[in-house]
Order: sequence, then C-alpha cells, then structure tokens
Amino acid sequence: MSHLHQDKKILNRIKRIQGQVASVEKSLLTPESSCLDVLQQVAAIKGAVNGLMQQLLEQHLREHVLKGDQNFDEEEMKQYLLLLDRYSK
Amino acid sequence: MSHLHQDKKILNRIKRIQGQVASVEKSLLTPESSCLDVLQQVAAIKGAVNGLMQQLLEQHLREHVLKGDQNFDEEEMKQYLLLLDRYSK
Amino acid sequence: MSHLHQDKKILNRIKRIQGQVASVEKSLLTPESSCLDVLQQVAAIKGAVNGLMQQLLEQHLREHVLKGDQNFDEEEMKQYLLLLDRYSK
Amino acid sequence: MSHLHQDKKILNRIKRIQGQVASVEKSLLTPESSCLDVLQQVAAIKGAVNGLMQQLLEQHLREHVLKGDQNFDEEEMKQYLLLLDRYSK
Repeated sequence: MSHLHQDKKILNRIKRIQGQVASVEKSLLTPESSCLDVLQQVAAIKGAVNGLMQQLLEQHLREHVLKGDQNFDEEEMKQYLLLLDRYSK
Repeated sequence: MSHLHQDKKILNRIKRIQGQVASVEKSLLTPESSCLDVLQQVAAIKGAVNGLMQQLLEQHLREHVLKGDQNFDEEEMKQYLLLLDRYSK
Repeated sequence: MSHLHQDKKILNRIKRIQGQVASVEKSLLTPESSCLDVLQQVAAIKGAVNGLMQQLLEQHLREHVLKGDQNFDEEEMKQYLLLLDRYSK
Repeated sequence: MSHLHQDKKILNRIKRIQGQVASVEKSLLTPESSCLDVLQQVAAIKGAVNGLMQQLLEQHLREHVLKGDQNFDEEEMKQYLLLLDRYSK
C-alpha cells in the first residue's frame, strides 16, 4: 500500500483544487466576470497544483530514498526544500 | 460581457481538469495505487492547466491587443504561439 | 537580415549575462564562497536568460506577426506582455 | 571551504555556457543569422543553466542534508532526481 493512501494533507489539497476549478467554471458562466478574473483564478490553480507536486516529491524523498530514516538534519532538509521551491522552477 | 463568457472550448478544458482531479482523489483512496501513479496524474493536471493558461493568454492577445482585427499573418501567429509554448516555460 | 542584427538592447543583455557567468566561475575558484552564494548567482543568471527570452519573443510578435504595424493599442500590448510574464512560467 | 570549490564538473558546465553565450553574441553580429537561430540558441542556454541548477541542488542534498552519508538506496535517489527533473518544472 502506497504511503500516500488516504493521506489527509494531500486529500485536503485535492479538495481545495476542486473548489478552485469549480469557481473558474462559475466565472465562465457569469456574464460579469472579466477575463482578467479568470486568468487570476487559473494562475491560482497553477500555484496550488505546483504546491501539491512539491509535497508529493518531498514525500517521495522521505519515504523512498531515506526510507523514513531520521538520521539527517531536519533543518538542512527544510533549507534544501526551500531552495528547491525557489530555484528549480 | 467577457469574450470568455460561455466559451465552449474553455469550458471543456475545465471539465477535463475536473475529471483528472477526481481521478487523483480516487487513486488516493485506492490501496493498490502507487505514488508514481499519483505523481504522473498530477503531472498531467499540471500540463492541462498550463494548456488552459496558454489558451487564455492567446485569446487575450487576439481580443484585447488585436481587437479581433484580422490584418495579420495567421501562419506567423501560429509560429509565434508555438515558440511561446516551447521557449517561455 | 534579421531584425535582431546588432540590436543594442539584446547585445547589452548578453554582455550582462557573460559578466554573471564569469562571476560564478570566480566564486567556484574562491575558497570563501559558499554554495548558497553560487546557487543565488546561478538563479540570477536563470532570471536574466528568461528576461532575454521574453524580449526575443516580444520582438518576434511585433516584427513577424504584426510586421511593425502600429494599429493596435500599445497599452493593451503592455498588459498582455505583463500577463505573459506573470502567468506563463 | 565549500564542497563546490574547484568542482571540475560544475566548472565544465560553466565553460560550456560561456561558449553558448558567446555564440549568441556572434549570431547577433552576423547578418545571415535568423531570429529563429537566436531563439534556439537562447533556449539551449536556458536548458544548460537549468541543468547546472539541478546539479547544484543535488549536491546540496547530498552534502548538506545527507552529509555525504551513504546509507540510502542510490537507485531510489536516481529515481527521485529523475522525477524532480521531469515534474518540478
């Protein structure tokens, strides 16, 4: 069974993305919405999906490479993940 | 009223993304799904959202900058959009 | 002859990037430089190269699609380029 | 002293990028070069700088988080780095 099975944090992110996508649909059916509104909403979905991807990759590193092992410096891990987020896009 | 109002092509893209997000949720609740499956599904959503964004930006160029005007070379426009997709990410 | 031939603005950007790449080389040969310094310098080069690419794509749009034509709204063009920069990466 | 100090592989990448940037400058000063040639050359520099960044981030993970430690599965590390390259951009 995958380490992602029923992972609350990941499921919550999915729920939020579903809500964001539904609101874009609503904007497209609402005459008053401007195309800039829709662009901004889609940009927010892009950000949310990228955030979900980063979390999945982090979990893959912790579960598969480090196998849940704890003998590394958690502060250095946090800095690595910060650098990854800032510089790898 | 925005040029995006009730735009069939955009609404269809939204529907497909909703389906993709729902299938990630399903994978997370299915014990047999591997984390690589989920990663691939989320990567596909990233691609679909990027495709939606490119289409919105193209329409913004045609409707707002060129104001639906047709006196430009459509072949050159297609090449520009191809270069944009290939090189601006 | 390409519209880019001897383009001062583009040549200046290239010069700046050459300077940035040379300073990374210098950091790699300087014992006191930290790896965070080098990461930051390379991130700055990434930004500069992306900026160069955006300028080349803008010129391609103006010269090849619009063929230097001026009968479009320059303010709308600026907004389109801003949206492109913000949302297409 | 940083683990990057006089790192041959990194220095070689920098040399190659310097060569690529010099050839863009040459193209800009050569009447026969087309703007598509220049776009392609700049895209290649983008790829080379991204590759350099990925290598720096990998070394940061190995040296700072894992502190050169070897008790993890190198095959899983390679897969993680592959997923990172494919999905995090």
